[in-house]
Order: sequence, then C-alpha cells, then structure tokens
Amino acid sequence: MKTYIEENSGRFCEELFSLLRIPSISAKKEHREDMLRCARRLKELLLEAGADTASVLPTKGNPVVYAEKILDDSFKTVLIYGHYDVQPPEPLEKWNSDPFEPVIHDGAIWGRGANDDKGQLFMHIKAFEYMLRSGELKHNVKFVFEGEEEIGSPSLPAWMEENKEMLKADVCLVSDTTMISDKVPSINCGMRGLAYLEVKLTGPDKDLHSGHYGGAVANPINTLCDMISSLIDKDGRITVKGFYDDVVELSTEDRKQLARAPFDLDEYKSFLKIDEVKGEKGYSTMERTGIRPSLDVCGIWGGYTGEGAKTVLPSEACAKISMRLVPNQTSSRITELFIQHFKSIAPPYIKVEITPCEGGDGFLIPISSDAFKAASRAVAEVYGIEPVPSRGGGSIAVLAEMQKILGIDPLLMGFGLERDTIHSPNESFLLSQFFAGMESIALFYKYY
Amino acid sequence: MKTYIEENSGRFCEELFSLLRIPSISAKKEHREDMLRCARRLKELLLEAGADTASVLPTKGNPVVYAEKILDDSFKTVLIYGHYDVQPPEPLEKWNSDPFEPVIHDGAIWGRGANDDKGQLFMHIKAFEYMLRSGELKHNVKFVFEGEEEIGSPSLPAWMEENKEMLKADVCLVSDTTMISDKVPSINCGMRGLAYLEVKLTGPDKDLHSGHYGGAVANPINTLCDMISSLIDKDGRITVKGFYDDVVELSTEDRKQLARAPFDLDEYKSFLKIDEVKGEKGYSTMERTGIRPSLDVCGIWGGYTGEGAKTVLPSEACAKISMRLVPNQTSSRITELFIQHFKSIAPPYIKVEITPCEGGDGFLIPISSDAFKAASRAVAEVYGIEPVPSRGGGSIAVLAEMQKILGIDPLLMGFGLERDTIHSPNESFLLSQFFAGMESIALFYKYY
Repeated sequence: MKTYIEENSGRFCEELFSLLRIPSISAKKEHREDMLRCARRLKELLLEAGADTASVLPTKGNPVVYAEKILDDSFKTVLIYGHYDVQPPEPLEKWNSDPFEPVIHDGAIWGRGANDDKGQLFMHIKAFEYMLRSGELKHNVKFVFEGEEEIGSPSLPAWMEENKEMLKADVCLVSDTTMISDKVPSINCGMRGLAYLEVKLTGPDKDLHSGHYGGAVANPINTLCDMISSLIDKDGRITVKGFYDDVVELSTEDRKQLARAPFDLDEYKSFLKIDEVKGEKGYSTMERTGIRPSLDVCGIWGGYTGEGAKTVLPSEACAKISMRLVPNQTSSRITELFIQHFKSIAPPYIKVEITPCEGGDGFLIPISSDAFKAASRAVAEVYGIEPVPSRGGGSIAVLAEMQKILGIDPLLMGFGLERDTIHSPNESFLLSQFFAGMESIALFYKYY
Repeated sequence: MKTYIEENSGRFCEELFSLLRIPSISAKKEHREDMLRCARRLKELLLEAGADTASVLPTKGNPVVYAEKILDDSFKTVLIYGHYDVQPPEPLEKWNSDPFEPVIHDGAIWGRGANDDKGQLFMHIKAFEYMLRSGELKHNVKFVFEGEEEIGSPSLPAWMEENKEMLKADVCLVSDTTMISDKVPSINCGMRGLAYLEVKLTGPDKDLHSGHYGGAVANPINTLCDMISSLIDKDGRITVKGFYDDVVELSTEDRKQLARAPFDLDEYKSFLKIDEVKGEKGYSTMERTGIRPSLDVCGIWGGYTGEGAKTVLPSEACAKISMRLVPNQTSSRITELFIQHFKSIAPPYIKVEITPCEGGDGFLIPISSDAFKAASRAVAEVYGIEPVPSRGGGSIAVLAEMQKILGIDPLLMGFGLERDTIHSPNESFLLSQFFAGMESIALFYKYY
C-alpha cells in the first residue's frame, strides 16, 4: 500500500480537509446543520472509495453514516466504527490557526478533528479503497460513523438495537485512541468509562454586594470550592461513598505485565511542562490513567469573570465534573453515588442542583483473539517492532454498549500520539502516523 | 424643601435619567468615552443648579468633576464627595429591564447607578439647588465627583494631593451607603477596607484530554478549589498567616452599643432566600459585616464552561478574591500577607500568579462631632425617629485617604436600602428615599 499512499497522498489530504472544514461540534445545538453536512460528505467519500451502498440514517439525535461492501457471505465481516463529531474548539485564542481551516506544517495536519476522529476514521476509508482497488480485499466491510461520540453517544445504542441484523460482523475495528509513541506502538486492550455531571450551587437568590454581606452570608463559589476539594482526599482517593466498591484490583502479575510498557516520567513531565505529577497514592502514572478511576473538574464558573474588580458575592456557582471509571464500575451506578454523596455534603446554607450529562462504561478486550493477533502482526510489520498491549485512559462509551447489544468485541487500533493534544487547542495528526495507520489497517485485513 | 420636591420631581427624575443612561463602567476600558460624557453632563447639571464654577478636570485615570459655590469666607465649607462611575451590569440576563435605560415602577427608579452612586450624589445637587434658590444656604459648598470609585480610586489620592488648597473644607459629606431600613434610619460611623486580588493557577502548559491524563496530572481547577477552601477554616476564620494581627477587638460595651441596632435574622434570611447564614464563630450577623473582616471569591473560571460535556483537564484556572478589612488593618499589608500565604500553600505541581487589583483602608468616624450631630438631627426630623450609628460592611477606599491627605473627616449620610441590590442586577432606589435624602441633606445644612 506504500506506493498507493505515495501516489495519492495529496488527494487523501484534500478529501480529509473537506471533512475537517465542517465544524461538526455535537455539544452545541447551533451546529445541527453542520452535522448533517458532515454526514453527507462522508457518504460521498465512502461511495467514491467503493462502498456498494452508503446512507445517512436518522437517529434520535445526529444521523449515522452507514456503508457496506459485501463481497461474499462466506467471508469474515469487519465492522468499522468511528465518529464524525468533534469537541468544541474553545479556548479559541490558544489556537495557532483556525481550528476549522486545516493546515499542514511540521509534518502534521493541524485542525479540530485532524486526529479525533475524522483523521483516524478516514484511514479506514482509504485502506478499504486500496484493498478493493488492488483486488486484495477478502472481507465484507461495514462502516458505522456516528455524530454523537463526544457527547456520550446518546442515540447510537437504540439505533444499534434496531439494526442488529444489518450490523452483524465478526469484529469491530476502531481507530480512536493513541499509542504509547511512534517508537513504542501499542494496541489498547481496555478503556475507562465515564460519568460526567454538572453541578449548580445557589446561595442567596441574587448577586450581593460583597461588602454589605461578605462574612455573614455563605458565598456559593467558596462553598463549591469546599465541596469539590473534599471529593479527593490527601492520598488522591475519591471520597464519594461506595466509589471503589466495584473496582477490580489487578493482581501483582497483571500490574507487572502492564509495567513492561516503556514510560519515561521526565519526558512526560517535560512534555506537559509540569514540575510534579499528582495522583492516587500507591500507583504509577501509567496505572493512574490505565487501571484506576479519576475525578476531574472540566469546567468551573461563577461570579464576575470580566476585566477589573467587581466586588460581588454571587448568587450561583457551577462546575462540570468528570469521573473516569475502570471496567466493572458502571456509569449509572457511579452517577447515582455521586449525586447521593454530593447532596449529602451540601451545607444547609446553599441549594444544589445536579444534572448528569454523559456516561459510559469501561471495557476490556481479550488479547488472545484472532483479531488482536492479526492487528499485532500488522502493526509489527509497519513499525518494525512488536506492539505492547496497553490500557487507555479515555472513554469510548458506546463500545461497551456494542459488546452488549451486538455481541462484537471491539479492536482498538489507534494511531494518535500524546503530542496530538486532542480535545485541546492545536489538535494535530502526524502525517507519518496517518499513513502508517492506513498501512497497518490494510495489513490487518491481510492477516485477519 | 418638601414643596420644592413636589413641584420639581419630574424634572429631577429626567435630569438623573440623563446620567443613568450613560454606561460609565470604570472597570472596562471600552467605556473611556462614556466616562467623559458622564463627567460633562454632571458639570452641566452642577452649573444649572447654581455652582459658580464647574469643571471636568483630568487625572491619571478618569476625570474628576469639581464644582464650587463660595458665598462667604467666614462660612463653614462642606465638601461633597460622590462618584459617577458604576459597576459592570453583568449578568445581563438577570435584569428585568435594560440597565442603562432607567425606568420608574413600584415606587422606585431601576437601572445601574440608580442608587450607587449617581442617584445618591444627585440628591446633593438638588439639595444644594434648593438651598441656594430659597436663599437659605449659609455654607460654602464644594463638589468632588470622581469616576473611579468602583475600581478603587487609583487616581484620586494623587489628584487630592495636588489640589489640597482648593479642596479645603470642614467636613466631607458622602451619600454612598445604606441605612438599616427606612423604618430604622442609621448613619454610618465606620466602613471596612478592601484588598482585592486575582489569582491564576497553571498546571500543564496546554489543555489536556481528561481521559488520557485524568488521575495522573494535577488539575488546576481542583487545585484552586483546594487552595481556596483552605483559606477559611471550619470556624469561619481566615487562615492567611498574620491576617488578624491588626484587627482591634471591640470591647463588650462597644459590642453592646452596636447590638442596639434592630436586626431581624428571619427577615434577613427571607430577603436573601437562604435557609442559614454562615460566618465567623462567636459573632453575630451584624458584627460579621460590621466589625469583622471577611474573604469572598467574587469570580472563578477555568476549563470548559459552554453547553454540553467537554472532557478536558484544563491548563489554567483563575479566581478573583476580595477581602474586606476592618479599621487598623491596612490594605497594603493584607495584600502582602495574602500573596505570601497563597504562594506558600501552592503545591509543587502548579504555578501561581497573583495580581493585586484594588485596595483601600477602612476607617472610623467620630460620632461626637458637630457634623455627625447635625446629620442625626436632620435625619431624625425627616424620618420622625432618631437614627442609630452603624458600621457599614462595604468600602469607600478613598475616604481613608482623604482623611489622611486633606485632614477632613467624612460624614456618611447614605439613603440606600438593602432591597436596592447595588452591584447586582435590578439595582434600584426608592423614590421615597431619594426625596427623603434630599430633605435630610437640606436640613443638614440648616443644623450644621
């Protein structure tokens, strides 16, 4: 496939750019029309690549793009999952170029979605195109690209239930994760789940003068800080009652296996420009994101945040709180426990409202399967080094659902790198990884 | 003066409205031109009211409006201080009408500045007009209206230093405070000082994916919450090292005197729609705002604050922190102590930047002076009840400076009420207080 990439790389980039230019931000309602535009463009690209059929299918939310190429009923069927929605680009002022006007420099594509997940799903379209045109394809291929992954895939499970027959497959191939580095390729064998909630504290029913009332009336921002601060103890453990009940402690042997993956703490700190890491006592940095749950405030706001000094004791304060969960913890149970706990620690001088926003369970992938072995062999051939199995810290909520509904194990061949800063300003995707991904996927078909 | 008010109330409101319509927000640079417009309009109003001269005088910041009427060198001179700048109107969505399009309903004027301080300074212009036209004025009167009170009067002290001779007076009369209620008139005999700072915490140098890093890298929002939470202990005392060193404890007798002012805790809570008050252990609600210092977060922000769920571990988190100080604490010392303390509690995994924004010292006013007695008599006559001396929780930073520079004691005849919600949405000023204020001021001239 190397030659094919060399001959077509300009076209590949142009086609990908046509997707990247569409601000398909699922978190914001005003982008509804962009979601549809993006889905339609994907449909065109799938048909041009050689799909028998491709359609933009309605769901309760943003549409799903479904395409298939059925060569022979006796062939194994590979289902490709990806998502065409992207994270909001804010804070805009930190981007070096327009997030929705992709550019290539320093060997990478820069723009929102360059990696997550438009860039990565696009590798599958092109690997498929190559396999088909070269006559090497010996599988049936189905594509499911959804438009709500970044908001927790609220509509896809029901849609999958309704389309079980159509979606039958032997494996679900997904490129929506990172590998340890381009020198240390890895294949994910598990991901964390997610429970994401918004909390709102109300003190007095109106903003007050901080001089007239300060010291006598509880300030909801101060109270929110107290409550958030109490959620993690001095050992880095989450204090939500019952939070760890379902967490499976890994055996010493399993922890040893995972620790084989190379990791350089100094490099990690220097990449992030931090002096110290911080996390749960008794676990390494890799373990803290791989096999342990976590709690982060993703956003906080309240009071006066403009220029200068406004002396106000505000009426309200809000925060968005995300918890990453490990397999066996369920998002619904943790959401319930969080709500109970947060209400129980709310002092009498404020009112609390809690809104669950998003959730999904974590999952594990058997590394002994034929598909995992084929993927390992393909990646080893492209990178010249055996990939290590790794546990991803992120979440693709819908894959646990897919395991349940369709009975198909996912296989996570991700080609992102830490340096790509997905979800952040200046998201990028190295061209070398973009092309190595296509090659690896093509070889996966060969060995599977 | 009652008849004069009745005959001219329509004109009074129209004149005041011409000031209220100008968005003279000193905290925002884009309103520079509005500051000048407002100053010029004030100058016109002062000349129309009968001032000999009125001028818009430059300072290092927004201009000062100065006017005077010198009748006789042997007369006592009253210096009127007020400010024509206003607080930012945000959050705009909470206003029932345009903050800069004043309206009258329910017996009150509604709009930003209706009370603080355009409404209150305007009472002085009209009381002066009446005294002059009726031939009753037996004082020299000087007006100083500044445009930077809401940002801590950074330019006025230097301007006063340069204009000491011009500003000579026997008392400085100020209406920029509240009274306990219109049934319980009060005159302020002290105000708190202020130290206001902005803090910024930086963790990683870029926003991160909360899945890939959550649990392993300190989140600056969580850290900011920890740090803010630690600033007040469980007894409601501020933990900044050395914070209470200069606080004067009041004698039991003094506390008894202040406790004479009527206060209904249930009414207070029901006005604010809160179930409980909160503050320093061992002090009453009135004491907590009157004679004790306080610490409030006036604003906080960080991470994703838009619609929906963005899973981000942000690079930065910020807060605006205000401390109200009691007389004898100095703003400069407390600012210094806060910076030292906040840096000392910063963990190694984040960086802290602190910017002092605003400050001013508290002060006390002798209640035995002729001016205080005259004010008491005037207010008693208008309200039919003897006013009580009270301690204000707010700050007018520049008055402590004025005491030092000009050697003039301020006299705080404020006619605002709690219900006016100054600094908040739907600021208002009761017409009954507006007119009672004018009457009281006119009587002050008579008795002083």
